[in-house]
Amino acid sequence: MSNNGYFASECFSVEDNSLSQKKKITVEDLFSPHFKIHDPEAKWISDKEFIYRNQEGTVMLWNVETNNSSVLIENKKIVSLKAIRYEVSHDREYALFAYNVEPIFIFENNIYYCAHVGKQAIRVVSTGKEDVIFNGLSDWLYEEEILKTHIAHWWSPDGTRLAYATINDSRVPTMEIPVYTGSLYPTVKTYHYPKVGMENPSISLHVIGLNGPTHDLEMAPPDDPRMRDYYITMVKWATSTKVAVNWLNRAQNVSILTLCDATTGVCTKKHEDESEAWLHRQNEEPIFSKDGRKFFFVRAIPQGGRGKFYHIAMSSSQANSSNDNLQSITSGDWDVTKILAYDEKRHKIYFLSTEGSPRNRHLYSASTNGNFNRQCLSCELIENCTYFSASFSHNKEYFLLTCEGMFHTVKECVLEIFDLEVNENVQVAINERQMPKAEYKRITIDDYSKYDGTPGSQSVTEKFEVSWESVMVSSHNAIVIKFDGRGSGFQGTKLLHEVRRRLGILEERDQMDAVRTMVKEQYIDKMRVAVFGKDYGGYLSAYILPAGEEHQNFTCGAALSPMTDFKLHASAFSERYLRLQGIDNRAYEITKLAHRVSSLKEQKFLLIHATADEKIHFQHTADLITHLIRAKANYSLQIYPDERHYFNSAALEQHLYNSIINFFVECFKVQDKIPPPPIKEEEEED
Amino acid sequence: MSNNGYFASECFSVEDNSLSQKKKITVEDLFSPHFKIHDPEAKWISDKEFIYRNQEGTVMLWNVETNNSSVLIENKKIVSLKAIRYEVSHDREYALFAYNVEPIFIFENNIYYCAHVGKQAIRVVSTGKEDVIFNGLSDWLYEEEILKTHIAHWWSPDGTRLAYATINDSRVPTMEIPVYTGSLYPTVKTYHYPKVGMENPSISLHVIGLNGPTHDLEMAPPDDPRMRDYYITMVKWATSTKVAVNWLNRAQNVSILTLCDATTGVCTKKHEDESEAWLHRQNEEPIFSKDGRKFFFVRAIPQGGRGKFYHIAMSSSQANSSNDNLQSITSGDWDVTKILAYDEKRHKIYFLSTEGSPRNRHLYSASTNGNFNRQCLSCELIENCTYFSASFSHNKEYFLLTCEGMFHTVKECVLEIFDLEVNENVQVAINERQMPKAEYKRITIDDYSKYDGTPGSQSVTEKFEVSWESVMVSSHNAIVIKFDGRGSGFQGTKLLHEVRRRLGILEERDQMDAVRTMVKEQYIDKMRVAVFGKDYGGYLSAYILPAGEEHQNFTCGAALSPMTDFKLHASAFSERYLRLQGIDNRAYEITKLAHRVSSLKEQKFLLIHATADEKIHFQHTADLITHLIRAKANYSLQIYPDERHYFNSAALEQHLYNSIINFFVECFKVQDKIPPPPIKEEEEED
Repeated sequence: MSNNGYFASECFSVEDNSLSQKKKITVEDLFSPHFKIHDPEAKWISDKEFIYRNQEGTVMLWNVETNNSSVLIENKKIVSLKAIRYEVSHDREYALFAYNVEPIFIFENNIYYCAHVGKQAIRVVSTGKEDVIFNGLSDWLYEEEILKTHIAHWWSPDGTRLAYATINDSRVPTMEIPVYTGSLYPTVKTYHYPKVGMENPSISLHVIGLNGPTHDLEMAPPDDPRMRDYYITMVKWATSTKVAVNWLNRAQNVSILTLCDATTGVCTKKHEDESEAWLHRQNEEPIFSKDGRKFFFVRAIPQGGRGKFYHIAMSSSQANSSNDNLQSITSGDWDVTKILAYDEKRHKIYFLSTEGSPRNRHLYSASTNGNFNRQCLSCELIENCTYFSASFSHNKEYFLLTCEGMFHTVKECVLEIFDLEVNENVQVAINERQMPKAEYKRITIDDYSKYDGTPGSQSVTEKFEVSWESVMVSSHNAIVIKFDGRGSGFQGTKLLHEVRRRLGILEERDQMDAVRTMVKEQYIDKMRVAVFGKDYGGYLSAYILPAGEEHQNFTCGAALSPMTDFKLHASAFSERYLRLQGIDNRAYEITKLAHRVSSLKEQKFLLIHATADEKIHFQHTADLITHLIRAKANYSLQIYPDERHYFNSAALEQHLYNSIINFFVECFKVQDKIPPPPIKEEEEED
Repeated sequence: MSNNGYFASECFSVEDNSLSQKKKITVEDLFSPHFKIHDPEAKWISDKEFIYRNQEGTVMLWNVETNNSSVLIENKKIVSLKAIRYEVSHDREYALFAYNVEPIFIFENNIYYCAHVGKQAIRVVSTGKEDVIFNGLSDWLYEEEILKTHIAHWWSPDGTRLAYATINDSRVPTMEIPVYTGSLYPTVKTYHYPKVGMENPSISLHVIGLNGPTHDLEMAPPDDPRMRDYYITMVKWATSTKVAVNWLNRAQNVSILTLCDATTGVCTKKHEDESEAWLHRQNEEPIFSKDGRKFFFVRAIPQGGRGKFYHIAMSSSQANSSNDNLQSITSGDWDVTKILAYDEKRHKIYFLSTEGSPRNRHLYSASTNGNFNRQCLSCELIENCTYFSASFSHNKEYFLLTCEGMFHTVKECVLEIFDLEVNENVQVAINERQMPKAEYKRITIDDYSKYDGTPGSQSVTEKFEVSWESVMVSSHNAIVIKFDGRGSGFQGTKLLHEVRRRLGILEERDQMDAVRTMVKEQYIDKMRVAVFGKDYGGYLSAYILPAGEEHQNFTCGAALSPMTDFKLHASAFSERYLRLQGIDNRAYEITKLAHRVSSLKEQKFLLIHATADEKIHFQHTADLITHLIRAKANYSLQIYPDERHYFNSAALEQHLYNSIINFFVECFKVQDKIPPPPIKEEEEED
């Protein structure tokens, strides 16, 4: 037995009898206004002012010194412009609030610039080619897997320069997705999508100066043989003339952070990182001092037996030395999850971390000099709230704090607190309902632990959430268990990296062990254990479903848009965990779901996929079905014709949740009718 | 009450207790050698000789005068050549038996001719273009809907001329079918497929003379304004220089039968037909006298209240008159189903008909002079066999007779009968099993009657068949009922044509009435009535499923590759029954299944479709699913990725049958658990 393998598990169950007077949560609730949490999308625009949208949709300006608020844009104006976002330029010279009247727009993947509202737009970049060459916007791969946003252009702080990426997909093979409905003949949607081992999009970073005649300068990529095929994972302006860029090699195990001179295109290496497995958290932005000579970023630091944890590094360049001084501000068996702000005047760095528990996110400050004294700012602030996010005013004298977990009313006000949004309607809805009761357990089982999401993600947190799982608990008396084990984030890189090149295998052992433990502790009925997952989790749930031994099998399993063969998935995803094909064909071979489903006999399996899924292609499910048919497996199918990966209709989401819930309810019902196997009464003999 | 609406129904049930000692029929049985009926594929090649394949696969030659048989090709030779067919040229000069060594190849849709085996092939037609211009072969539409064969070339009786069709698809829109599996990126299969109202393939008929230098001559289409857009539905050589051609207008209500001079290309009209609904049976070949001056064909003749029936017409051209003399050889409330042979010497015409019952096919002869005396040749021949096919030797002195129905051993031999193939193994298998017992009923319900197939087809016959329905009866104690009602063939054109422009509506009323009758007569349990159909029948089953009234609903329904919107289907099919779109948009609108499924709530519905179905596109099912989702209907789905309309794997067919059977068995099981509604005991009060 080793005590290295920790894992967090979360059980939701309705047990309290006093709740029986209350309503149960239904799928309809999930889509009702009662459970609609309003996010004010507050943004600081100065030292003392922030803008936000109130529940009516009006954009307000709040001054925290005077505690006065004023209307900035009426909601009806936003509605009439069909604006879905509002933006304020950094220098506030262009205070434009609706996406439709923004001075830049990117048309046919070229960049147009309009110096003043109302003036003619000038095309400053003209290499764009629709769906092939992207200037300032992400292609599919960059949006979904690398930058995680469709925006690939960045304004300098003074607004005089624009950095933008050129992403060239011309050598990337195209994916064709059939569109069945809406026309007499089905049509085909075509776009560039690099599968494993295929040509990736090439990327370059450019800066255009917009003061005077525009000129375009490419920032030089690192001259390093390991960087022949690379991704740009992060771009951030350090000063008005220096831009920080993170370059990651295709194998995703070497990264180079550079600071580039926007006037010459010369980039200087500031930090380099390497991993035996893969590099994680590659698109987080460093925070710079005003002069750009000091910056803070997150890097993985060895912390003993559990591997590396993510901590704040401070890099200071010496005036008369080419070497930078690197210091760790934090350390320990926990992660800094986000660096928020650097207060140069008070020598403080603000950040969120999991110091209390991997499930929590508290706001901390640390001194950037002396002994780096650390202080929790949110820990005692709001009763029962353990999961926060925050944003700082420009001079760092104020912050907006959002309680995302446990969702309780602000009870007492220490410091200077005011309530911007308490989502009272949601609190009323919660108080009226039988809410799931969460229990957290930390279990040590041999060397194993459990998880359920994409490597690096986390299922068990104290963030507030009402989902179809809540309906399972509240309306159908189910117990929902979430595991974060090997492969999950925020518990050290040892746990994270163990799944490398063998996705599924350890997770299966872990799940089986965890279920066994939960059964032994009489948490759950061993005859009625189900598994669910989506995307990568869909792969895992289908992988795990056939597992089992005598008298301990999963009864039902459901997989939503599962990956079933990692070769068919996006290069940047699969190669991260399974390495490049060719280097490691075996890893791709052993992780094919086809091999697993041949033993799917007794279990009931629900497979769900949208046919126009542009992220995890329907091809995955089509391929799996051919094997399910061959194996004569017992499965049900739900397809959503012409729907994409992310449904954009509440009606469809509702249908989806109902399908999953009905499947599990029916599956357990049938199980009710099967007499349990005779129990050997060993205890009595003792 | 009217007695016009007859319909035939067939009930299969296992009732006989003495059967309980016997095995039940299983799905596996359907694919076992025990139930494999061997077809000797016998073909006459002279006055006295025919060739056939024995159970070992060897091609034999049988002389009926000497009753001797000899080996023509060893099976191992056929296997080594991978030949799937064998052919003999009409003049026996080229006695070539394996498809692979046939002297004509059609390559890249051009025609090559090789006068003697071993000589260089000469390209005689060069206009072919792969998948666009077809010379001598059918395009998709002609193969599936018009000619019903991929062969579109016809040798003259003396082998000196070749008639071939040129089918030009260049203006026909293309259909794209995704192929998901087997490659890293899904591919697309593209072919020309005219949907309703779209440009059809154009067709022309050519004759090449192969004696001396080849020359190509087009046969002139009828100069008739009604024939601007036409199909060629039949080509048949009358003599060595005359070729009969049937031309059908696009609306399929006018047809012109011409006799074309192969040496000049001039075509003379021999017969014209017109219908207020659509013309049926348009690709049956006439039978000619040696000199081509007399011919026999089938045409619909009014027979009173039940509309027209199909009978033999004899057309004789007068030597010194341009008018032909047309006489009906047969008449009555029954159909001639096939004209087989004309014996000029004895003035006899041989044919199959439904004279005894629409369910039967007996062999008859009729005199072609005098009072057209008719005689049944097969009626008393084989005990209990009521469904025959036959083929005649060249001089019509012998015929081969195949018993396709009831499948009983030849008991007594009248005339000169020898047994070519008795399929003893199948008879043994049948004797060992609880076989479905068939009962036939003729029911008159108001003005309605029932049917279940494509218009013009027939479900209720006495043809022998073992199918998944037999498994339902034998292994699951189900009663399977087949209805042939309005829209079905062989019961007069009134019944046939009533469904025109309102496919589904009358069938629904009919089915409901029939089920009500069957329930009243206590044949079936009204709580457990299901409906199944495929293709057009799939449309009907989904159309009918939501129908019902208090205490009389269908419980379960399954549709295999259903048409769900006739606009999406092939022009030649949909336009035949619903007319051209534009002329009758309403007919297309009211027949959309989407409108029906909104009331699918209580019933369980299984939908099955292969994703690469090239005949009824998966698009139909995709479209229906979006409506089922919107309607929150209770449905299950089974898709066969990358499979085509006709499965070519026994394993898949087996999976299909198991899916359907399991669905019905499960569906009825659940129904078992629902308590029946309280019965009002009215009888007792009487």
